[in-house]
Amino acid sequence: MTAAELNREIRRKKSYLCVGLDTDPVKVPIHLNRQVHPVFAFNKAIIDATQDLAVAYKPNLAFYEAMGTSGLEQLEMTVDYIRSVDPSLFIIADAKRGDIGNTAEQYARAFFLHYDFDAITLSPYMGQDSIEPFLQFPGKWAILLALTSNSGANDFQMQRLTSGEPLYEKILQESSTWGTPDNLMYVVGATRPEFLRRIRRIVPDHFLLIPGIGAQGGSLEMVLENGRSTHGGLLINSSRGIIYAGKGEDFAEKARAAAHDMVSNMGL
Amino acid sequence: MTAAELNREIRRKKSYLCVGLDTDPVKVPIHLNRQVHPVFAFNKAIIDATQDLAVAYKPNLAFYEAMGTSGLEQLEMTVDYIRSVDPSLFIIADAKRGDIGNTAEQYARAFFLHYDFDAITLSPYMGQDSIEPFLQFPGKWAILLALTSNSGANDFQMQRLTSGEPLYEKILQESSTWGTPDNLMYVVGATRPEFLRRIRRIVPDHFLLIPGIGAQGGSLEMVLENGRSTHGGLLINSSRGIIYAGKGEDFAEKARAAAHDMVSNMGL
Repeated sequence: MTAAELNREIRRKKSYLCVGLDTDPVKVPIHLNRQVHPVFAFNKAIIDATQDLAVAYKPNLAFYEAMGTSGLEQLEMTVDYIRSVDPSLFIIADAKRGDIGNTAEQYARAFFLHYDFDAITLSPYMGQDSIEPFLQFPGKWAILLALTSNSGANDFQMQRLTSGEPLYEKILQESSTWGTPDNLMYVVGATRPEFLRRIRRIVPDHFLLIPGIGAQGGSLEMVLENGRSTHGGLLINSSRGIIYAGKGEDFAEKARAAAHDMVSNMGL
Repeated sequence: MTAAELNREIRRKKSYLCVGLDTDPVKVPIHLNRQVHPVFAFNKAIIDATQDLAVAYKPNLAFYEAMGTSGLEQLEMTVDYIRSVDPSLFIIADAKRGDIGNTAEQYARAFFLHYDFDAITLSPYMGQDSIEPFLQFPGKWAILLALTSNSGANDFQMQRLTSGEPLYEKILQESSTWGTPDNLMYVVGATRPEFLRRIRRIVPDHFLLIPGIGAQGGSLEMVLENGRSTHGGLLINSSRGIIYAGKGEDFAEKARAAAHDMVSNMGL
């Protein structure tokens, strides 16, 4: 998918919403546990209830890996199901990988070819040759961590370099030349809206994937005000705030209501 | 396993060797492809041929994930097999993960409880709260990327901070207070021996996991001279140089010979 196509979907659905599928088997409502694949059953219900409101879904790999092969099987079922519901939905593997060339190639093949993800989140720490293998797949995307939403972001990302800027800005400047706004986007936490304006100056045309609205306390209004590009350029993620909005048999309706609430405040 | 126990194994076997199981199904010798689990059959032969020479094994997760659920199954079989051969072998998940608290917990459970790994490699980019969940498991280890062996290490790891030191030294200084030499070690590439001496001054007692000998061109002699701690404190990894030493039916004998060669130069 190109950036123009993704922006078109955003305008069509009047939504920047990415639903994070951080599905914890322990939190799946009890009535689903009778199913052979309770995590997939949960995801399917969430997808059915939100597919007209969301432009993207983001399964968090850790939750599926923690379940072993059964988790991976249900991840695959989830990705296939999203594709079958609407081929224009953007599917992100939240994997935060990052490794040297030959290993990066294996990961790229795993996420882009074995699974049919559109994008994968990556850590920039190992530099250009750890990212480039992901930029070789037409229509597929690398999403680099820039400024994350957790308190640990202060430990290293905010460290100032002798060249004057903090590390995360250096990463934006350098890495933005490795790909294009059609195959590279950045993770910027909603908990740091004061930096969004500066980030937009460094990467005016790149998509930003924004976690941290809701459970982590970020403000949607501030993100919209400071983060939008000329053409849109935002994917705003909510995970727990949507998928765990309800705990009972009506969890999918509650998820839909939470998603609707968020989208109606997106000003599109 | 404690640092003292690992150092004891190193002295007993006169070896710092960690064998990297970056097993690419495409490179498995043709006669093994008749097997139901060719990657496991390959790993089992390598382990049988090297278990008295190596103190550690390091499956590279990317290669197993690229194969989908079958890869994960063969990874599990591999870890279980190593445990059954010799419970004192140290098993590292080369995963280079790094994510916020609740996700990090999922990964820790996946690697330490679902699989029985002793350690997992992690990226430090997201800071302390992304690492701490891995330090809560008695006897288990977090291995942080400090200075990697690839050319991309120059992009950000070597960037100098206003406080005077390069980023990777700041990471060593800060993170060494998060855990102890009994649950925290560091990845330092053998391709950068000139920095090993400085690193040893910052973390005199921590284990260093050293990739980059062999295929990547690092010198074993330089690593031994500059990297050893008082008690040992090194795990020296070789992946392709050992597991692909031969291509035919005698691949395991060739792997043993390559491992033996390396260990006999370790001066123990």
